Amino acid sequence: MTTFAIVGTGALGGFYGGLLAKSGQEVHFLLNSDYEFVKANGLRVDSKLGDFHLSQVHAHPNVASMPKCDVVILALKSTQNYLLPSLLPPLLHAESMVLVLQNGLHVEQSAREAVGPGRVAGGCCFLCSNKIGPGHIRHLDYGKILMGPFQGLDDSEQGPSMVRLDVVRDMFRATGIECETTSSLTWARWRKLMWNIPFNGLSVILNSSTDKIMKDPDARALAKSIIQEVRQTACDSGHFIEPTFVDYMMEHTDEMVPYDSSMRLDFLAGRVIEVEAIYGNALRAAERCHLEPKLIRMIYQQLKFLSKNR
Amino acid sequence: MTTFAIVGTGALGGFYGGLLAKSGQEVHFLLNSDYEFVKANGLRVDSKLGDFHLSQVHAHPNVASMPKCDVVILALKSTQNYLLPSLLPPLLHAESMVLVLQNGLHVEQSAREAVGPGRVAGGCCFLCSNKIGPGHIRHLDYGKILMGPFQGLDDSEQGPSMVRLDVVRDMFRATGIECETTSSLTWARWRKLMWNIPFNGLSVILNSSTDKIMKDPDARALAKSIIQEVRQTACDSGHFIEPTFVDYMMEHTDEMVPYDSSMRLDFLAGRVIEVEAIYGNALRAAERCHLEPKLIRMIYQQLKFLSKNR
Repeated sequence: MTTFAIVGTGALGGFYGGLLAKSGQEVHFLLNSDYEFVKANGLRVDSKLGDFHLSQVHAHPNVASMPKCDVVILALKSTQNYLLPSLLPPLLHAESMVLVLQNGLHVEQSAREAVGPGRVAGGCCFLCSNKIGPGHIRHLDYGKILMGPFQGLDDSEQGPSMVRLDVVRDMFRATGIECETTSSLTWARWRKLMWNIPFNGLSVILNSSTDKIMKDPDARALAKSIIQEVRQTACDSGHFIEPTFVDYMMEHTDEMVPYDSSMRLDFLAGRVIEVEAIYGNALRAAERCHLEPKLIRMIYQQLKFLSKNR
Repeated sequence: MTTFAIVGTGALGGFYGGLLAKSGQEVHFLLNSDYEFVKANGLRVDSKLGDFHLSQVHAHPNVASMPKCDVVILALKSTQNYLLPSLLPPLLHAESMVLVLQNGLHVEQSAREAVGPGRVAGGCCFLCSNKIGPGHIRHLDYGKILMGPFQGLDDSEQGPSMVRLDVVRDMFRATGIECETTSSLTWARWRKLMWNIPFNGLSVILNSSTDKIMKDPDARALAKSIIQEVRQTACDSGHFIEPTFVDYMMEHTDEMVPYDSSMRLDFLAGRVIEVEAIYGNALRAAERCHLEPKLIRMIYQQLKFLSKNR
């Protein structure tokens, strides 16, 4: 049996951690405000894969009570990554791996700085999921994870071996969700940004769900222009994405259930939004290649202003 | 004595028309919802040039009761320009001139189509003024008018002669406001757009007054990028604006009294906003020169969406 630590038991950590526990893995959940509730009542997941309730889970109020685990899944918002130097090292034994399931580009860098080289992998999650109450997750749609070793800011580093990732992949698959591995995490991250950059930002700036954006001709054209710019920036920084992926992203979004992006939910709830992980890091990667993506820059500046002046 | 018709007695028409009437010109005001009030109580202007109250004004509920006038000042929002074919022709004698004091680029085209060539001039108004009650205008700051003959969409037409405009200019000057004429109205309009395009749009999209935008480093940098793009678009379409005008616009805005743009006031009040006159016409002018200003396009698309989905 593999032991897992879930650092951050929210919409994402609660969902994947719950599935892993249900499939028989030993899963330790780090909780904050929900700790007492989950310790007493367990974890509930409403999912299109089947609703389930884990009446007894390994709930922890802080890392001091947690064992060292084989796989540490980082499922906090990236805006809390300043906590990693105190959260991650106590959870690691010599062979532990950290799997960063956060939105954005190069979000693994904070974990990498906290735990050193060779241990950090990242995963892109294609997941529509919300936390709707204490210890209560609602999984709306999707759930696929595409994960790979962290390559560093310039793709020159080595994360955990693909063989080790394949083992973790198979554990995720055993829970019923789709999971794939890739040796090109940065490339996978850029592909995911082709959705996150237009739709997270526009849903906040335009105060709208994605389906309303897709149905309006002006906002739709803007979303497509942004998607094209993200693709061009990825290509020009050495991560080729096929041109047809632009239309695929548009069609995929047309077919999505009406969905409030996590950034919009965070914004409406007064929580910090992940502007730096998604937009700031993409712009910094572009700058390192002497690129200046104007639309991404403009959304970034608008979001920065809005996050300071709600 | 020269006779004036003020088509649209709001923050702008009420201010300039009131000044002209106070200086002794015969001024006929077209009013809509304020007609009964102004007929009974006259027009009140609170101004840093000196407060005044005109207890008796020539108030009209429609153009049928108005005489033909020497100068017809168009001071409606450009979103009402579809009314011009019925509003303007009854007010014109053989020598009448139409002076379009609206925001935007090529906004004179609607008047030109309604009244034919050679009669239409336009003016850029640098005015901070609000209507704060029926027949009650508050002039906050500035007031200068820069006017010139309408040159058509491609600068190939002839409007009224400069000599005639100079006569009107001197009447405005006699009211105490600054007024200048120019033979390059399109150029003057582009210069004005260097303020309107960034600050009208951002104040709506970011739900903020201009002083908050200027004080935030991200929004400030965005505003400057947009100003630079407007300048570049003007230059590339044949209307040279000196590079130093970018910094001048920033400094000028820094020094402005905290001000809600007219577009933001309209938006907050649920009124139609002038997206096409300011942004749509600038984009169409750019397209005729095979230019694609990305930031202007993005603000345009955001404003179009927001104006449909408040």
